[in-house]
Amino acid sequence: MAQAQRFRALLDLCKRRGFLFQSAEIHGGLRGAYDYGPLGVELKKNIAQSWWRRNVYFRDNVVGIDTSIVTPHNVLKASGHVDEFTDALVDCLLTKERFRPDKAPPINFKQDKGQSSGKISIISPDKETAKLWEQKIQNELAPGAVVTRQGKEVLLHVKEMTTTTYEPATNSPFLTDERPFNLMFKTFLDPIDPIDRVIKTTIENDTSDARTIRDQVDNVLRPSTVYLRPETAQGVFINFNQVMRTMKTKLPFGIAQMGKSFRNEIRLEHAIFRTPEFEQLELEYFTAPWESSAWFQYWQKDRLAWWLEHANNKADIRTRNHEADEMAHYAKGCMDVEYKFPWGWGEVEGVANRGNYDLTQHMKATGENFEVLEDKPIVSSHLKETALITSVPQEPTRFVPTVIESSCGLNRALLAFLCDAFQQVQEPGKESRTVLKLHPRFAPVKCAIMPLTGNAEFQPYVEKVARSLRRQGLYTVIEAQKLRIGKRYYRHDEIGTPFCITVDHQTLEDQTVTIRDRDTAEQHRIPITDVSSIINEKIWGDEAPELE
Amino acid sequence: MAQAQRFRALLDLCKRRGFLFQSAEIHGGLRGAYDYGPLGVELKKNIAQSWWRRNVYFRDNVVGIDTSIVTPHNVLKASGHVDEFTDALVDCLLTKERFRPDKAPPINFKQDKGQSSGKISIISPDKETAKLWEQKIQNELAPGAVVTRQGKEVLLHVKEMTTTTYEPATNSPFLTDERPFNLMFKTFLDPIDPIDRVIKTTIENDTSDARTIRDQVDNVLRPSTVYLRPETAQGVFINFNQVMRTMKTKLPFGIAQMGKSFRNEIRLEHAIFRTPEFEQLELEYFTAPWESSAWFQYWQKDRLAWWLEHANNKADIRTRNHEADEMAHYAKGCMDVEYKFPWGWGEVEGVANRGNYDLTQHMKATGENFEVLEDKPIVSSHLKETALITSVPQEPTRFVPTVIESSCGLNRALLAFLCDAFQQVQEPGKESRTVLKLHPRFAPVKCAIMPLTGNAEFQPYVEKVARSLRRQGLYTVIEAQKLRIGKRYYRHDEIGTPFCITVDHQTLEDQTVTIRDRDTAEQHRIPITDVSSIINEKIWGDEAPELE
Repeated sequence: MAQAQRFRALLDLCKRRGFLFQSAEIHGGLRGAYDYGPLGVELKKNIAQSWWRRNVYFRDNVVGIDTSIVTPHNVLKASGHVDEFTDALVDCLLTKERFRPDKAPPINFKQDKGQSSGKISIISPDKETAKLWEQKIQNELAPGAVVTRQGKEVLLHVKEMTTTTYEPATNSPFLTDERPFNLMFKTFLDPIDPIDRVIKTTIENDTSDARTIRDQVDNVLRPSTVYLRPETAQGVFINFNQVMRTMKTKLPFGIAQMGKSFRNEIRLEHAIFRTPEFEQLELEYFTAPWESSAWFQYWQKDRLAWWLEHANNKADIRTRNHEADEMAHYAKGCMDVEYKFPWGWGEVEGVANRGNYDLTQHMKATGENFEVLEDKPIVSSHLKETALITSVPQEPTRFVPTVIESSCGLNRALLAFLCDAFQQVQEPGKESRTVLKLHPRFAPVKCAIMPLTGNAEFQPYVEKVARSLRRQGLYTVIEAQKLRIGKRYYRHDEIGTPFCITVDHQTLEDQTVTIRDRDTAEQHRIPITDVSSIINEKIWGDEAPELE
Repeated sequence: MAQAQRFRALLDLCKRRGFLFQSAEIHGGLRGAYDYGPLGVELKKNIAQSWWRRNVYFRDNVVGIDTSIVTPHNVLKASGHVDEFTDALVDCLLTKERFRPDKAPPINFKQDKGQSSGKISIISPDKETAKLWEQKIQNELAPGAVVTRQGKEVLLHVKEMTTTTYEPATNSPFLTDERPFNLMFKTFLDPIDPIDRVIKTTIENDTSDARTIRDQVDNVLRPSTVYLRPETAQGVFINFNQVMRTMKTKLPFGIAQMGKSFRNEIRLEHAIFRTPEFEQLELEYFTAPWESSAWFQYWQKDRLAWWLEHANNKADIRTRNHEADEMAHYAKGCMDVEYKFPWGWGEVEGVANRGNYDLTQHMKATGENFEVLEDKPIVSSHLKETALITSVPQEPTRFVPTVIESSCGLNRALLAFLCDAFQQVQEPGKESRTVLKLHPRFAPVKCAIMPLTGNAEFQPYVEKVARSLRRQGLYTVIEAQKLRIGKRYYRHDEIGTPFCITVDHQTLEDQTVTIRDRDTAEQHRIPITDVSSIINEKIWGDEAPELE
């Protein structure tokens, strides 16, 4: 499958050139954990920076915030995460695999003493395992059932099976009951290790009922129990009044946050697509209720525009509206931005109308008042979709603002833009090579400066150009190896460097250099003094051309 | 005390203008946790960015990395953190206060039946508590001792006290034994809550010996136990070979990382000075052993230079060399950069020669080879301190590189630069006001654009200037309130905005604006088309003038 091969080639490039490493690889790795290498860290920063510039710097009514990862119980109790951020889980009794079933009813195995009316084929990894499984089924899991074996295949002859859930890899129907679990990482804000206290509480207890003990243990641990935030959004909501007061702002306004969140995911997949530690770019936009539908539409369009602006293959980006039964009960609408990854479409961002649920929940839990007073309710002048405006009150009115949220997965964005940029180029008579067509704003290295040869006279010019670019905040490397210049260009094509500057003999005469474009391979000669402004203009010149 | 008052005024400003909020304040807060508001998040980013630009962008032999916060057991076992990142702790038996003693020998209380030769005065909060403490001492803690009471004071008449440790607030000598505890936050990479397993293991156990049970519990939990990294450095060390291979670089070279680390501190103090969640700016510089002393000196100077370059009051920054008994056993030298906070000198950065301890530890634990081969050992041409070069080998040689580390606390840097910038200005005949003299590179808002009045003709000019600055990545706000211009200047002085641009009637005629400087209050008229380049030059023009 060409897509899978291409993805492997991309991951290989990521490792070879320093975008992405498996975390703690020399120590055997950690499942689902990744480190960003010298180029990956720049790519990630650049995507985040583009998002921040567009949404904070270019908007007069959006500000940023950066809240604590460690979050107390009360906040996540109020938000619903303690009670509802759960999922169901089953273990297979044969393979010990743990997975999230769509439905996992308790097993109710019925058989009629040999008069089988069908059979289930359970595929084990090898003959030895098949033997063990046959015995385990016969002796423990379904005593008296008719079980036979053919090589690696264990055959279960059945009249009727009431379970519809099977371990996906082996087809085993022998599963534990469903158990609910919470996706949040819990830890303890206390230097004294809590495990000793749990043991002590259990030993000293009269009962041996695990449930009763658990309640007591929870009481003991409660004061020091904290969570790693499962999303950055809650940090925004609880600071709503602080920010509104500080910024002396009026509705609509937005609060942006980027940072790490943590979820104890069972299913980790596709490298950095789903990992326990991940980064979010979240914007909570607070509006009057009568404008909320119009702003919801605005943000859907605007976020899609950002994605399309930075992608080469526009057809690989689509949006998908959630059905009513997919959404959280409080949500009034939700749209995903999806990217066509090598394994299929995957969500990279969600834009949702969350109503006033979050603010209301925190109000109830704390007594804080998040209501806003509008003396003269009006419609924002810069709102174009007036058709979506609903009944504007005719008199002064108080209300809890409606939240329009956009929530982008930074690591997923990075992976999507890498997939989008990865091109294998086959020029006639040449070896196939890779060009990473990252948007210049995203490219880790903006510019590579290359003296044509090791001639010492080139050095002052190389340094002068480098300094002028670096003072613009443009990551610039000097490529002074003895490789011929074409090879050096190709090495930079492979990591997506949009511009290469060459210092040559003519530079000594007329203070000009050549600038080579990654995508067209064209070269132009420009004065040294213009390099930084030309490159800056190429990268940022058309930034946020029209936001509203 | 003027210093304490000034510090309170600074913290008040931080809250009022949106630099710093107590985390989860509406939910009762979380001890030692802070959120960065709209201005705080920019200030923090700007300090980090200045560090990154100087150390990564401006150096040809330093690259960045961004590694996982969640860290497996093996990594921190090898680094020594599991076993040695511990501290001692005692509880006071009277007040229940927990604190870190310098020395806390077990209490060995001796008294000679009334023939007291001295007395210890223990101060309780009120008379009632004093009565309770008197009884508790008499009945439980030191039965038979002579105890008297005067109001809130409990007097213990003693012949001889062998403990030298007292609860600092009350003077109580009644302390628990010292207990070691680990400063790392532990959590579990497993959606199934581990507490249930601890209870189950304890219940099912034959013994009631907590130590034996604990060992079994640890075995059960080991596979899913992970830590929040206590420093970013280890993520760098374990990726040493990956980065070296990727970047095709030679020694000396550096790997920089910025990001969050977590420590279960007992003593939280001075707002963001010491908090469990904090941010580090760490640079690990790998050198040949014969160059290590010279590079150690280089980095001490260079890091101090960065601090001095960005501070107003150079006398408030000093360095301090560690005594041999203050350092980790493997360290060959360590220097702190200290800032004179309102409460005294405090460490804001450490520069250390860590030898090859870290790399060696990870080699031993994994079998990975971190040795570097130098075919022709030489001395780096850009190293000036040649007097510190030690015996350069005359033949090809293999060695594990020596690490020079600089480790800056970002939150402490933010607090130090705020203290340094905070100035209360008293102009004759005017009210006292605050000017925050942050370095322009650090200032959250780089530029405020102010139309003189609400005249609609000003608007296109305001937007044009804003856009040109924003496209340079300079955070720019538009101040169109109806306040008189002087008030608007003062509001921006208070948050450290270095430049204010005013659009007035003359702008309509000749396309010029005035630029006002925060520190001199001088105004100049400049063409609109020059605004972004002039401001960019003022901020970044002298960046990293001479690194070596």
